[in-house]
Amino acid sequence: LTSRSLDRESGCTVFFKCENFQRTGSFKIRGASQAVHGLTAEQKERGVVAHSSGNFAQAIALAASSAGVPVCVVMPRTATRSKLDATRAYGAEVVLCEPTAEDRERLADELVAQRQATLVHPSNDLEVIRGQATAAIELFEQIPDLEYLFVPIGGGGLIAGCCLAAREFAPACQVVGAEPLVVDDAYRSLISGRIERNQTTDTIADGLKTYLGDNNFPIIQRHVKQIVRVSETQILDALNLIWQRMKIVVEPSAAVPLAALLNQKQLFENRRVGVLISGGNVDVASLRFLSGADSPPTDRAVF
Amino acid sequence: LTSRSLDRESGCTVFFKCENFQRTGSFKIRGASQAVHGLTAEQKERGVVAHSSGNFAQAIALAASSAGVPVCVVMPRTATRSKLDATRAYGAEVVLCEPTAEDRERLADELVAQRQATLVHPSNDLEVIRGQATAAIELFEQIPDLEYLFVPIGGGGLIAGCCLAAREFAPACQVVGAEPLVVDDAYRSLISGRIERNQTTDTIADGLKTYLGDNNFPIIQRHVKQIVRVSETQILDALNLIWQRMKIVVEPSAAVPLAALLNQKQLFENRRVGVLISGGNVDVASLRFLSGADSPPTDRAVF
Repeated sequence: LTSRSLDRESGCTVFFKCENFQRTGSFKIRGASQAVHGLTAEQKERGVVAHSSGNFAQAIALAASSAGVPVCVVMPRTATRSKLDATRAYGAEVVLCEPTAEDRERLADELVAQRQATLVHPSNDLEVIRGQATAAIELFEQIPDLEYLFVPIGGGGLIAGCCLAAREFAPACQVVGAEPLVVDDAYRSLISGRIERNQTTDTIADGLKTYLGDNNFPIIQRHVKQIVRVSETQILDALNLIWQRMKIVVEPSAAVPLAALLNQKQLFENRRVGVLISGGNVDVASLRFLSGADSPPTDRAVF
Repeated sequence: LTSRSLDRESGCTVFFKCENFQRTGSFKIRGASQAVHGLTAEQKERGVVAHSSGNFAQAIALAASSAGVPVCVVMPRTATRSKLDATRAYGAEVVLCEPTAEDRERLADELVAQRQATLVHPSNDLEVIRGQATAAIELFEQIPDLEYLFVPIGGGGLIAGCCLAAREFAPACQVVGAEPLVVDDAYRSLISGRIERNQTTDTIADGLKTYLGDNNFPIIQRHVKQIVRVSETQILDALNLIWQRMKIVVEPSAAVPLAALLNQKQLFENRRVGVLISGGNVDVASLRFLSGADSPPTDRAVF
């Protein structure tokens, strides 16, 4: 998608790759499908195990079950009912764990051992990274002369895939990372040369709290020259702009790349810039105006 | 746009014509452009006058000013600041009136007389009706075998245009009207044979409170066999479905046709059905989670 109004706002020509329209509502289905596709016949029979509290849960559920592969997803017992229900509806068995990274990984490892299943990591699995690359490949096919591509960094799988795609299909295009200031682990990792973790996770961009992995970090180190960090206010402003001007529903994490571009727009003036909109999974029912609980609307404003 | 999930929900194959992505955020720019295009050189010089509290204000502002035609829009002094600002930003002079139909029309007539300008009515002007027809024409070009087309009824210009389009380009396609129960003036007009008005206007679908005109009503009488009325709850449910499943921002009025289809879905099973999404102008900033005023998000839910 393009937007005259956001071109004006940013001073460059922006091409949005809208993964909020993707099946299961985010780019995650790409990597999940690729991972399932790469299994041997025997692995397919034994099934896959994954752990996720977010978009990857639904993605691996759909990717595996539509290929006839048994799938079990470890999810924190604090996950919203809508996420648990959606993951089950896509055909996964859901196993609940305590809401800590340790418990989640321990339980997933146990299940893998018990079932001789294959663990699919949401961002560090090499097949997953290759799958995510297809988002950028499609954008390069449509806009071959893209000069920059802004990508959010959570676990690092998406941006690593985009780097591989750029290297092969758009070597003149620089991949720019985008990260919330309060979870700037990737930014710090590039500086220190080792995988850093976050001490704070209090960001509205809840998909970007995770840290890099040993497969995707070297790719990011090699290819990403710049990571732009943004404040929570900048994320909210960018989110607002996307909803209001582009008329699309995106999740807060998906607004981080536009926030980064606007934050540093003097560097990208008149450039052709890609912005990867990573997903659109927000719980719309929890938006006050849609709950029906409010007083009736007045003439003044609808909501 | 299409949606597997909404196809499942409705039991038919739905093709959404998404006018929320249209310039100025609604289909109104079509009729406004057509009306401006149809002016003589002398009329263009003298300018146009319109009255609108909604999407037509911005549409006629942009259509006229981008053709170099002076444009003055009479708007109720109770209109939201964002609407007033947007209309001015698109190049219109805005004249404020009392928030009554009488004052609005009186003031517009005065301005027309003073300036020898041309009045452009948002839904009853024949050029405007012809312009709105292009929304349906584009849909028929893409989906030639459409069997039904659901269209919201406010002032009647859009549905009248869609009827003319169907007659010429898709004679096998039936145009179905959709209206909120509490403003079912068109439904009652079809029964009584004369233009009825509304006693109640307390609907979330604020674009559909107006009544039909003497140019569009005969077209609607001749071509529309069915108007489906929906409750406020059904509108909210449809709005929620569109935002949540399709990931697009639409205004409440734009959800009325889907609400109507779902309300009567047994009649349209396995049919190929068009749904006209009329616009996407909602004040996103007033959605609570985007205001930034709330407490920081938790792990449990984003908003």
